[in-house]
Amino acid sequence: MEWVTIVDPPPSTTFYAEYQNTGPGSTVDQRIKWADYRSSIPEADAGKFTVKDEQQGGWIRMYPLPGADMRRFVIGSARNLLHRSHQNSLFQRPLLSSSYRLLSSSPSADPSSSSSSTMAHPVALNNINPKVLECEYAVRGEIVTLAQKLQEEIKAKPESHPFEEILYCNIGNPQSLGQQPITFFREVLALCDHPAILDKSETQGLFSADSIERAWQILDQIPGRATGAYSHSQGVKGLRDAIAAGIEARDGFPADPNDIFLTDGASPAVHMMMQLLIRSEKDGILCPIPQYPLYSASIALHGGSLVPYYLDEATGWGLEVSELKKQLETARSKGITVRALVVINPGNPTGQLLAEENQKAIVEFCKQEGLVLLADEVYQENVYVPEKKFHSFKKVSRSMGYGEKDISLVSFQSVSKGYYGECGKRGGYMEVTGFGADVREQIYKVASVNLCSNISGQILASLVMSPPKVGDESYESYSAERDGILSSLARRAKTLEDAFNKLEGVKCNKAEGAMYLFPRIELPEKAIKAAEAAKKAPDAYYCQRLLTATGIVFVPGSGFGQVPGTWHFRCTILPQEEKIPSVVSRLTDFHKSFMDEFRGLV
Amino acid sequence: MEWVTIVDPPPSTTFYAEYQNTGPGSTVDQRIKWADYRSSIPEADAGKFTVKDEQQGGWIRMYPLPGADMRRFVIGSARNLLHRSHQNSLFQRPLLSSSYRLLSSSPSADPSSSSSSTMAHPVALNNINPKVLECEYAVRGEIVTLAQKLQEEIKAKPESHPFEEILYCNIGNPQSLGQQPITFFREVLALCDHPAILDKSETQGLFSADSIERAWQILDQIPGRATGAYSHSQGVKGLRDAIAAGIEARDGFPADPNDIFLTDGASPAVHMMMQLLIRSEKDGILCPIPQYPLYSASIALHGGSLVPYYLDEATGWGLEVSELKKQLETARSKGITVRALVVINPGNPTGQLLAEENQKAIVEFCKQEGLVLLADEVYQENVYVPEKKFHSFKKVSRSMGYGEKDISLVSFQSVSKGYYGECGKRGGYMEVTGFGADVREQIYKVASVNLCSNISGQILASLVMSPPKVGDESYESYSAERDGILSSLARRAKTLEDAFNKLEGVKCNKAEGAMYLFPRIELPEKAIKAAEAAKKAPDAYYCQRLLTATGIVFVPGSGFGQVPGTWHFRCTILPQEEKIPSVVSRLTDFHKSFMDEFRGLV
Repeated sequence: MEWVTIVDPPPSTTFYAEYQNTGPGSTVDQRIKWADYRSSIPEADAGKFTVKDEQQGGWIRMYPLPGADMRRFVIGSARNLLHRSHQNSLFQRPLLSSSYRLLSSSPSADPSSSSSSTMAHPVALNNINPKVLECEYAVRGEIVTLAQKLQEEIKAKPESHPFEEILYCNIGNPQSLGQQPITFFREVLALCDHPAILDKSETQGLFSADSIERAWQILDQIPGRATGAYSHSQGVKGLRDAIAAGIEARDGFPADPNDIFLTDGASPAVHMMMQLLIRSEKDGILCPIPQYPLYSASIALHGGSLVPYYLDEATGWGLEVSELKKQLETARSKGITVRALVVINPGNPTGQLLAEENQKAIVEFCKQEGLVLLADEVYQENVYVPEKKFHSFKKVSRSMGYGEKDISLVSFQSVSKGYYGECGKRGGYMEVTGFGADVREQIYKVASVNLCSNISGQILASLVMSPPKVGDESYESYSAERDGILSSLARRAKTLEDAFNKLEGVKCNKAEGAMYLFPRIELPEKAIKAAEAAKKAPDAYYCQRLLTATGIVFVPGSGFGQVPGTWHFRCTILPQEEKIPSVVSRLTDFHKSFMDEFRGLV
Repeated sequence: MEWVTIVDPPPSTTFYAEYQNTGPGSTVDQRIKWADYRSSIPEADAGKFTVKDEQQGGWIRMYPLPGADMRRFVIGSARNLLHRSHQNSLFQRPLLSSSYRLLSSSPSADPSSSSSSTMAHPVALNNINPKVLECEYAVRGEIVTLAQKLQEEIKAKPESHPFEEILYCNIGNPQSLGQQPITFFREVLALCDHPAILDKSETQGLFSADSIERAWQILDQIPGRATGAYSHSQGVKGLRDAIAAGIEARDGFPADPNDIFLTDGASPAVHMMMQLLIRSEKDGILCPIPQYPLYSASIALHGGSLVPYYLDEATGWGLEVSELKKQLETARSKGITVRALVVINPGNPTGQLLAEENQKAIVEFCKQEGLVLLADEVYQENVYVPEKKFHSFKKVSRSMGYGEKDISLVSFQSVSKGYYGECGKRGGYMEVTGFGADVREQIYKVASVNLCSNISGQILASLVMSPPKVGDESYESYSAERDGILSSLARRAKTLEDAFNKLEGVKCNKAEGAMYLFPRIELPEKAIKAAEAAKKAPDAYYCQRLLTATGIVFVPGSGFGQVPGTWHFRCTILPQEEKIPSVVSRLTDFHKSFMDEFRGLV
């Protein structure tokens, strides 16, 4: 018997409770009116909105009547009133991580953290923007906070834990784990940062000839060679020319530098599009489940509704257009205007690579349904299976004969991923096609408010789209560095995939691309009970136990969304190759002892 | 007789029309109910909301009854329904620039720009986020678009205009106008970008010894020396340590590195705070008028209300606490919850520097009224008057004995300004003090969604707060570069100020700091009529004529806000010193011929 309590609901509001009965793949909705629930509540709980969840493996969403002022009671701000008086790990928020926050709480609930601030400061949790409260970002969430704490403890007292270092497999941050930057790229960046050395003789000895030449070329494209000046709001025109040329070379279809908006990594570009498209919680964005939590966070911050579509784990995280259609119809029947479809290809956290035919069907679907296609293509260089190839959605749609007038398409790219992994440089772009000039003007205006993205990031974005070519002095070393990184990533992915599949109760799909594995884990009933006792979702509990035992940081599947009742975690393939055997053995030992601990009946 | 028309108002809504009668300084509000207006409208205009403005020199705002769904009819999204069927320059939106946009327009109104896109694309002006439409950003607005067009024309055909180049005085972008970066800073950045050269012997010949030493120090503070890795969401801890030490040295009061959030320039930090504080249009932010339009843009994007307070031009743009109190009360009487006070010191666009006593009164006001003090201190190094000194609001509040518990204070700093002017590097930080741990956690979470700011910008932010010291090898050259830039800026400010004050009908306050002058211009009645005929605000008309005649880009005062009925423009003091005489003579000649053209009676 599990309880979910909302403290102090607005008195005059009528609620629905929405149940979802789940086995994997099934999504049977059941709506039960609050008033019907209310009658079953003990008098002691009067004044609270208390819902009894007796459906094992299901989940609950609660919201007032559509049209009411607080329509998105749970999905929106008021979800923060939620209080799990008795913790229930089976009460699973499908897209969000496992910590609940309390706005107006009973006195017993954690008085230390908020009450003092509420008294002393004009800004408190109960008067900040509820969209901020709503937003969650699991890959830097609770588990990472714990990891940072452990790291500090190890630093202070090296013997304090049974491991020597924290291994951050929570985030696609290759260079933090030892991946070296591509020399040519860094040479050019350094020269553009300090052009005064370009014509010094010593520079010849330190830098490759083509990096010097490239730096001159780039500087000549920047008005006044001023790498310290704000650029055009979309980025330096000459750098956008180089990127457009790179896209053309990749796709075999023309690209227009005026369609390119350079951004500080891909994240601000995603925010910009969400900001443009979302007017209210009645606007929905179709997002894959599991998804990269930037999307759920950005949609929450902009006050829209995430419309989930499920990737099919059984077919290697397949993306079925029939599922898209079903979820689109469901959303529409609830009064949601679906504005856009997010596709992450190669997938994050799933690593799957879409087949070209599949992509065509997706393009057709967006065209037919009038949806903007938001194509997250930041892992376009990260493909590890020789039989498959990355195709950009722009190439696919153009190859279908669809142009500017037919499909609104935004492609996101970043310097943080690929073989370059330059996360700290915050470079990236979006290519915006199929929008009217008037709407483009609005995107430009929003870009202008932040003036421009950082110039080093802009330069790097142009470099990754126009790396050294055969015959350039740096080509050989460049391609050796690139191939070394990519082939090592492929080996690491395979080794980890195999290791996961050897673990009891764990099943891991093939990593075709990106930087992650997202294995599914069947947890013993006793472990689930232990998680409940620890007030954790079972996958979060597993990840926390793994971290405290081994120093390895995985992110629980609940941070990305998963079919309710299933449990996963995301693990990057980024630990350096020499560390992989130790990761595998630490993981294997931990898993065995964890399963042994919870084996048997409850 | 002037007309303002709203096409297709929601039929069942009751409007107020709010008039403001203005002479400079006077703010008499008059509210007239829509129904009373309605009776005076000719039958041909039925179905429109038409307001006749017969009050010369005044301005109008219109909105439905408070509490109605579309309460912010004009201030908010529906303002975009506004159609000025007969252009009236005296109808002045106090905070916004001069272009109106039309959502659902009569067929005659500019069918080319929007109709084709509306048909072909799912995203059109009438279905994007109205907050995006609402937002305006004048310093990269219409006048800059025109300047870019002229620049392209000159490039294509050098003799096409009576000037050889466009002189961008619209934006504080020093290096775009030839200012050179500080050598030491760039040396360190280059070395951190390409650490592989740090221990090469040639490097000793190219870089100063202390830049090499500093680069090592910085790299040692970055885990794995990985400048290509995402950092902590608030920025690299060691760099925050350096910044905190710099703040301590500046203020004489302690600073905590955990209070520092490194950001891509100051703009994202401002957005972050607006995002945190603004829940709806009922939340207001007190902003100076004139203001830097980042604030109006950010408030619009986050759906809040800008509560204006006027700086007193007559007393050198004085900031009177009595004016703050008056505007706070007015806003509260309208049901606005005022959350924060924005103070820009030194002022943008006004250039004034606040006296310490004045700052104390402001701190006291915020404390008493429970307002967050948002202190834009990005021009802290830009002070040109020896008798005045910059004091940070943190120092002032600490010197009053106010600590964490007493005042919520956010200070913004940027690498784009000061003597460094590194706009393209997008570095900056905010120091967040006086917030509870729970709210701080929320700020951290929002910072995490974008992972981190760019590392070069982070490094640079630490460098500007800890530049070379006496005894360091680079100190002499560093301080010579710094002093050269600052003293030249002071001379340029004075020369331009004097030049403006010599122009007929122009009055310019002393530039005490920052990078701008904001002179007031009295325009002849005939020029105002000509502006009306050209469908421009008079100051926008003047700036456009100046641009097409001389190539000099100023921003009209209407982009920053000004006392209704007064006209200004903002001009940066950044053209290189050798160009200043030519700027002055081109401006003087233009102004004389402009005034001659419009001299005499209408």
